[in-house]
Amino acid sequence: MSVQNDQTTAGAGRTIISVDAMGGDRGPATVVAGISESAQKNSDVGFILHGPRAELEALVAKRKPLLGRVEIRDATDVVKMTDKPSQVLRSGKNTSMWSALESVRTGEADVCVSCGNTGALMAMSMIRLRKLPGVNRPAIAILWPSHNPQGFNVMLDVGADIRADENDLLQYALMGASYARNGLAIERPRVGLLNVGTEEHKGRVELKAAHDLMAKVGPETNFDFVGFVEGGDIPGTVCDVIVTDGFTGNVALKTGEGTAHMISDQMRAAFSYSFLSRLSGLLAYSSLSRLKKRMDPRRVNGGVFLGLNGTVVKSHGAADATGIAAAVKLAFRLSQSGFSEKLAARVASATAQAKNAATDQAESSD
Amino acid sequence: MSVQNDQTTAGAGRTIISVDAMGGDRGPATVVAGISESAQKNSDVGFILHGPRAELEALVAKRKPLLGRVEIRDATDVVKMTDKPSQVLRSGKNTSMWSALESVRTGEADVCVSCGNTGALMAMSMIRLRKLPGVNRPAIAILWPSHNPQGFNVMLDVGADIRADENDLLQYALMGASYARNGLAIERPRVGLLNVGTEEHKGRVELKAAHDLMAKVGPETNFDFVGFVEGGDIPGTVCDVIVTDGFTGNVALKTGEGTAHMISDQMRAAFSYSFLSRLSGLLAYSSLSRLKKRMDPRRVNGGVFLGLNGTVVKSHGAADATGIAAAVKLAFRLSQSGFSEKLAARVASATAQAKNAATDQAESSD
Repeated sequence: MSVQNDQTTAGAGRTIISVDAMGGDRGPATVVAGISESAQKNSDVGFILHGPRAELEALVAKRKPLLGRVEIRDATDVVKMTDKPSQVLRSGKNTSMWSALESVRTGEADVCVSCGNTGALMAMSMIRLRKLPGVNRPAIAILWPSHNPQGFNVMLDVGADIRADENDLLQYALMGASYARNGLAIERPRVGLLNVGTEEHKGRVELKAAHDLMAKVGPETNFDFVGFVEGGDIPGTVCDVIVTDGFTGNVALKTGEGTAHMISDQMRAAFSYSFLSRLSGLLAYSSLSRLKKRMDPRRVNGGVFLGLNGTVVKSHGAADATGIAAAVKLAFRLSQSGFSEKLAARVASATAQAKNAATDQAESSD
Repeated sequence: MSVQNDQTTAGAGRTIISVDAMGGDRGPATVVAGISESAQKNSDVGFILHGPRAELEALVAKRKPLLGRVEIRDATDVVKMTDKPSQVLRSGKNTSMWSALESVRTGEADVCVSCGNTGALMAMSMIRLRKLPGVNRPAIAILWPSHNPQGFNVMLDVGADIRADENDLLQYALMGASYARNGLAIERPRVGLLNVGTEEHKGRVELKAAHDLMAKVGPETNFDFVGFVEGGDIPGTVCDVIVTDGFTGNVALKTGEGTAHMISDQMRAAFSYSFLSRLSGLLAYSSLSRLKKRMDPRRVNGGVFLGLNGTVVKSHGAADATGIAAAVKLAFRLSQSGFSEKLAARVASATAQAKNAATDQAESSD
């Protein structure tokens, strides 16, 4: 039963997103509420939803906007947050996560959305979708609130792999630039390489090598290389894409989140200090709400797995319906722009160029 | 001319801080204003001040609280922010920075304060003060605003060195714990090792080795080891000391600062959005000031260089008088607690223990 047969209203133009209904902290009802929110706002989106059929059918039936827009694929097992990736690879064939990736593998959908266990999702994506030719390490990219006009910067890798050599970092630059072009509509993204100082002589050996590679390859491909950037530039305006290894990127991401939480807690404490401060907090309510909306992590919900045959959007495990809808919106935008194919083509051409450059260099140094 | 002869009011009990008057972004007038603020609040502190004599004498003469509490050491040259460490080591003998470290080297002061160029200050400190026996890499420790009762956590290394192996990380744990005890009055600090996940099997090889070392050595020395922590725990309550290499630590520090600036800018924008929001901002003024004071980076001004024969407090280059006073307060507290000697003794005993443990292990594995 294909999506097209299921619903004559869908038409050929509808973009299909594969959604793992299970594995999130709030259960499938929240996922269904989220895709319903998406369907209501966007008539061009359709879904393949993976999980226990009876449970999902009941949930979908309650949501009018989903009428004729969802095909359910029965999957009885669920990947739990505590499951180890290795264990899931052995015994995960009947899980909703496996099934959701399968729809991307077969080409029924370009993009898959899951709010399940990150490690398991990455391991399963690598096995089922396989890496793009020329990519050694896939990466997880996120959108970081920034002072740039587009409102966000792309940062990668935030935790797919704890290592990255200069070639991996170059791949991250290419993939991050493609993501910025397709996800944030930046014609020619500026890429920065995260380091502890902006002088060219500073930092680790692989960073110096990556610096030289990016400076050479950038102008010939799809980005402008701005050189080394520092932690303070992640929300800044000197670049649109920040490239780093998955260890450093993950620490930076969690430090940023922790700092934001800390300030928000302190702000709450400051406004509940006395009667007068509570009153002033009440009066400041709309200003604070505007701020909160601007910095709302739910609005940028979705780490994107790059470097695979197909795109996977990892929604936050604790995402509510609004968070799920944001992840679906991102998946829709990437699917519609043909991101998966464009990225594959870009990586293939850059890999060829890098090989040529390496050959040229070897010849010239003879 | 010694400090004691200079002023009969000083007495033997006055704690002498060596202060580099030059090299900060705001010049020596700000440094003198800062130490004057300190002198006014604390009658037990005295200073050796380093820089061009005539200029400093004029500045000090204008500050009543400094009467009879400052000895000036003439130094004609200044280390500039743009100077490279290697260059400063060759030609820096007549700088105020060199002179300020000299007072610690000779034992006239336990602690030195400078707001000059970090790289140059670290390089010069290594050459003049030398590393403590048993320390391979000195580290820079900072205080990070936290939810813990003491209000701050210690994090190190934030940028002395971009590398750290398991033995360096163990040294950082010992030194950070000593700093937390003497600087924050925490009887038995809890130490966490920064990683990308809290499971023991995760992360880089040297982190696993450091994990095992700390678990073994911690209980026998001066800290409780809580295991791996994540970026979000840096301002959190699971530990008091966060240990990491200088690359990761520097990125985390600058990311945290960048995030805080971003939020503060957004907050300003939110409160200037309309007439009503400006009015509410005005009414919320005292709440916001309280928050600002709580999070004020000037209150925790001072990265501390650990692992040298003597302690160096690196104040922020852009520090104002309040920032300088905060750095002096920290230097005073560390000097008074006998921190330099205690740290040296702690490192010596731990080095001996680690050697014994290594020997035991080698024997038991035979």
